[in-house]
Parts: sequence; structure tokens; C-alpha cells
Amino acid sequence: MRYELYYWPSIQGRGEFIRLALEDAGADYVDVARRPKGMQAMMHLMQSRSVKKRPFAPPFLRAGELVIAQTAMILHWLAPRLGLAPKAEAARLWLHQQQLTIADWLVEVHDTHHPIASGLYYEDQKPESLRRAQDFRGERLPKYLDYFERLERGKNISYVELSLFQMTAGLRYAFPLTMVALEPRYPKLVALHDRVMQRPRLAAYLASKRRIAFNQQGIFRRYPELDR
Amino acid sequence: MRYELYYWPSIQGRGEFIRLALEDAGADYVDVARRPKGMQAMMHLMQSRSVKKRPFAPPFLRAGELVIAQTAMILHWLAPRLGLAPKAEAARLWLHQQQLTIADWLVEVHDTHHPIASGLYYEDQKPESLRRAQDFRGERLPKYLDYFERLERGKNISYVELSLFQMTAGLRYAFPLTMVALEPRYPKLVALHDRVMQRPRLAAYLASKRRIAFNQQGIFRRYPELDR
Repeated sequence: MRYELYYWPSIQGRGEFIRLALEDAGADYVDVARRPKGMQAMMHLMQSRSVKKRPFAPPFLRAGELVIAQTAMILHWLAPRLGLAPKAEAARLWLHQQQLTIADWLVEVHDTHHPIASGLYYEDQKPESLRRAQDFRGERLPKYLDYFERLERGKNISYVELSLFQMTAGLRYAFPLTMVALEPRYPKLVALHDRVMQRPRLAAYLASKRRIAFNQQGIFRRYPELDR
Repeated sequence: MRYELYYWPSIQGRGEFIRLALEDAGADYVDVARRPKGMQAMMHLMQSRSVKKRPFAPPFLRAGELVIAQTAMILHWLAPRLGLAPKAEAARLWLHQQQLTIADWLVEVHDTHHPIASGLYYEDQKPESLRRAQDFRGERLPKYLDYFERLERGKNISYVELSLFQMTAGLRYAFPLTMVALEPRYPKLVALHDRVMQRPRLAAYLASKRRIAFNQQGIFRRYPELDR
């Protein structure tokens, strides 16, 4: 099965959580919008009235006839096929529940630099961002980190662990000072990050040009004033 | 099967999307936190280290040994058992995808009155709320309404249609002037709202004391200044 991933071509964003799973599994996939005319294909699927089950937003995945959206749902469907999730229902639900909580967390990361409107520039919502980022660093971020640090994990790596690697990596990029201060409290999450990035296929991916660098258009952005 | 729903006892909030499904199906359920000592039971499941698969936040549902959280995931699991979703995978995924988009929409409703911090009072983030609500009314709300208005729906009512009823009802409570202005553009969503609320078991529920009224502690709140 060749998978088609549709996502904005110049940022990691939500698409990266799916790229990590596809890459770690060595899956056959096309990152459609990064190819010639790929953006047109992506916009067609979102906007055409002839597409019955239109996605509201990227990322979405095409697998044969199936087109599905919503990052956590894509991973819920995809990961058992990639060997990155068990097939038993209770275990799959538990992973999906964690991934949905990661999705909530990611919205809060985004909103540190866009608390007023995603359609406005950061520069047009800077005082509000300073306030929201302060609350995020002091309240919300430790709450999420506490939660995931305390959950028990088995030996197997699933897509949830790949996503937790991405959260740690992104938070280090966006909030380096905050993370230096917080990380000693979260040894399990730090160890998990290091373990995931050493997986051979993932290490090769992270060193390749396919891995888009963190940048100031993505969800994780480095604005020093938001980091204290 | 007697289901146990765990959610804050004094608001509709996210729990209401699950209550609507349980009520419409005539399911046997207990709204645990609204009973004596129910809040203690809810907090225990969230905070005790002896609970292996702790939820991050309410709502969550207990069904026998299974405890699951995240509104959209609860409905994804529950609705086929209640006759409110088909059992075929592709159809279930499409409903789940829509419900996850509704969940995203609901976060944006919440953030109109809490754009800075959910731990602060509205009164402590009022200038920011005015800006965020303006963007919500002018940009985000029409975008979501357009999306759901244009999707084709079959004759059957699923949990997604119950949730769309709740969105329309809540938006009418929170943004009455905005909705009066916008609704002529969305005849299908308005008709769906009316059709859902006439379903016999749901009509009985909505008229009962079990239906908590919209209020100023919930996700949908009426602050006239945020409605233009």
C-alpha cells in the first residue's frame, strides 16, 4: 500500500506526527504537497464539492479509496497497519486517548503565539501572547508533562511515544530556557525522547532533508520573549 | 450494561455531548458526579496513582472494566453500541472525523471567553476576549458553519447530528445576535437542530431536570459584549 500524506509543505506542524510514524515504519508514502502540483491536489480535496467527505483541514491521508483527516484519527487507523500499535481494541483506545490529549496540548502550544486569531500575525497579538505564554509555561505545560511522565509505559514503542518525542523536541526548540529548568523533573520523558531518536529508521529520517527544520511558521516557534 | 459518566456536575460542557447520546438512546447510565460522593469518585479516578490508565480530564466513561476519556473517543466507542452509529469501519471513521472537528470548534468557543488562561476569570481577560470573540464571530464561526452546512447527510441521525444540535443550541445561547444574523445562510443546520430536538426521548430529556441549563460557568456563555 502506498500512502499519500497531504500537509503544508514547509512546516512540521501536525503532519509531522504522521511523518514520524510512516518513517519509523519504513512505509511507502508520498508527501504530496511537497511535490510539483501537490498543493493543487491538496486544495482540491479540501474545497471541491465533488469530494463527499471533505476534510476540514490538513493533515489528511489517502489510502486507496479512503481519505481520512484529523491527526489523531489518522494515527489510530494507520498505526496498527504499520506495526506501531497493537490490534486489540482496549490497547488501541488507550493509545488514541493519549494521542487526543497530545492534540489538545499541541493546540495550547500553538495558542502561545496565536492567542487571538490564527489569521493574524504574531506581531499583531504580542501582548496577548506574552500573557498566554506565561500561563502556559507556569501552569499548563507542567500539567501535561506531569501527566505523561507519570503514565506507565511498556517496552514497546508505539506512535504515541513517537509523538511524545516530537513534543519534547518541539518544546526544546520553542521554550529552551523553560525546558532546561523543567526537564530534571521529567526523566522518563527525556529518556524516551533519546530512545526514540536513536531508532535506526527514525535517526536516518531526522538527518535527512525530508525532516523539515523547526521554523517560525510552524506550531513550535522560538520567540525568546515568550520563554521568559 | 449500565454506563457510568463522569463529568462536572453543574455545567453542560463536554459531558453534554455524551449525555445527549445516552439520553437519545434511552441507555441505562449514571451521571456519577451529580450523585452524593460522586465528585470524590471522579477525582479518585483522575488522581490516584493506583489507576493505571488515568484520564487527563473529564468527561470519562466507565463501562464494566473499561474507563475511557476524550469526548470524541467516548462517542466513537459508545455510539455503535447505542444504535447511534453504524458498525462499518469507513462510516465510523467519517463520523469520528466530524466529531473531532466539532471538538476543535468547541475549543474555539471556549477560548472566546478564556483566550489567555482557563485558570483565570473571564473578568481578568476581558480585552483579550473582545478581540478573540470578534475574530471568532467574523472568521472562525462562519468557516465551521460553512463546512458542516455543506456536508451531505443521510436520513439517519447519528451522534454527530446530536452534537451539531448542541452546537447550534449553545451558539444561540452565547451569541444570539450573531446567530440571528448568520442563520439564514445555514438552513440545513437549523433544520437539523429542529429535527433532533423533536426526537421523543431527547425532547423528554431537554424538558427534564437532568438537562442542566446553559449558564455562565459552561463552555457556551452569554457575555453581550462578546456578541458585538
